[in-house]
Amino acid sequence: MRIDILSLFPEMFEGVLQSSILKKAHQSGAFQYNYVNFRDYTDNKHNKVDDYPYGGGAGMVLKPQPIFDAVEAIEQKTTKKPRVILMCPQGQPYNQKKAEELAKEEHLIFICGHYEGYDERIRTNLVTDEISIGDYVLTGGELGAMVVMDSVVRLLPGVLGNDDSAIQDSFSTGLLEHPHYTRPADFRGLKVPDVLLSGNHAHIDEWRRKEALKRTYFRRNDLLEHQELTDQDQKWLKEWQTSQENS
Amino acid sequence: MRIDILSLFPEMFEGVLQSSILKKAHQSGAFQYNYVNFRDYTDNKHNKVDDYPYGGGAGMVLKPQPIFDAVEAIEQKTTKKPRVILMCPQGQPYNQKKAEELAKEEHLIFICGHYEGYDERIRTNLVTDEISIGDYVLTGGELGAMVVMDSVVRLLPGVLGNDDSAIQDSFSTGLLEHPHYTRPADFRGLKVPDVLLSGNHAHIDEWRRKEALKRTYFRRNDLLEHQELTDQDQKWLKEWQTSQENS
Repeated sequence: MRIDILSLFPEMFEGVLQSSILKKAHQSGAFQYNYVNFRDYTDNKHNKVDDYPYGGGAGMVLKPQPIFDAVEAIEQKTTKKPRVILMCPQGQPYNQKKAEELAKEEHLIFICGHYEGYDERIRTNLVTDEISIGDYVLTGGELGAMVVMDSVVRLLPGVLGNDDSAIQDSFSTGLLEHPHYTRPADFRGLKVPDVLLSGNHAHIDEWRRKEALKRTYFRRNDLLEHQELTDQDQKWLKEWQTSQENS
Repeated sequence: MRIDILSLFPEMFEGVLQSSILKKAHQSGAFQYNYVNFRDYTDNKHNKVDDYPYGGGAGMVLKPQPIFDAVEAIEQKTTKKPRVILMCPQGQPYNQKKAEELAKEEHLIFICGHYEGYDERIRTNLVTDEISIGDYVLTGGELGAMVVMDSVVRLLPGVLGNDDSAIQDSFSTGLLEHPHYTRPADFRGLKVPDVLLSGNHAHIDEWRRKEALKRTYFRRNDLLEHQELTDQDQKWLKEWQTSQENS
């Protein structure tokens, strides 16, 4: 996979891209990345990338010309049309399904604005996707692009070892994870549940399913909506519902 | 505000903390930060921070001892109890309201795991908050901690200039932002809406409200639930509903 990052602050990315799994994935050739400072593409003598909003109001707006030209310069060197992703609060809420979709692409371009708004013509005539990583205000699109890159690159073939990829993580099973415990069995009087020390794997599996379901029920009921539930699951859910109503 | 970051990968943070608003906020003294590599707190001779899960299964689990000891070493030097925040997919979904809540604190501690799960006793007996920045799988808690830090530090007094803070951003008005346009008025045949060039501020305000509402209605209907709507808003919403039903 090839990733081009349009940003006025490319130095923000290095610490993240040069650590851990992203570093290994880059070294192994699973993906390459390239920074594009779109200030280099301005056609005005002061290299201005933003300007005042038409109609008045506070804040600056990123001009269409430098970003269109920067994206088109990348596209001219490629045969297959890349996905052009605008990081913005107005975008589609990002989730694991979207990560899986993007992981199938050969080439992603991220456009990261900073403080400013984007000229609407960038949205309507240049990008293929608008993504928001969550309902909170960030200084720029850079952290969002790093989040999307990390979640996507992890899914590329060969990036995670067998051990890592075998981990049942929250969004692949559809439930929040069950509790984990490791040594010591007694830490300052806080004990590991007996069942985990029992060696009875049927009991352990049942306990883990129940605890994952319980945590999801009490913390993120919304995740249960599209979940396939067994008869036993339904029974547990009824128990918790009843105990909530009686409390 | 003081922020302590428990992480095995402190180098991931530098690019982000040394750029833009976080850099300025740090230089101005609005917040200080400090890295704690909790591997330094292990009491075993191999400096192991993780171990196999009780009950079997793939993946490693972060041991309670190094993280308890690292947090307690920080707490011993402070008088007021800090917020101890665990970054994890099982946490409370992060949003702007939570950012505003955390911005009122004097001292935050972030615990960032990496690949592994956390021993459940960290969750139940050490942390005050569990936060998830979204429903996607990341390699570690570091990017999440940076997202929370950026969104919180922006809200500290004096960090944003008047211009910046006057910007009406998506999550403070409760609606997605209306479209923005800047020069040129005609970019490759793509024109700025006439109303924005009219100089009629009542018309401009009406157009912006309508477009913000329209974008929210079509992209993020969920955000309208708790929104106060005027009679005019309701009229527009009915129009779009009708046109959807007829299409």
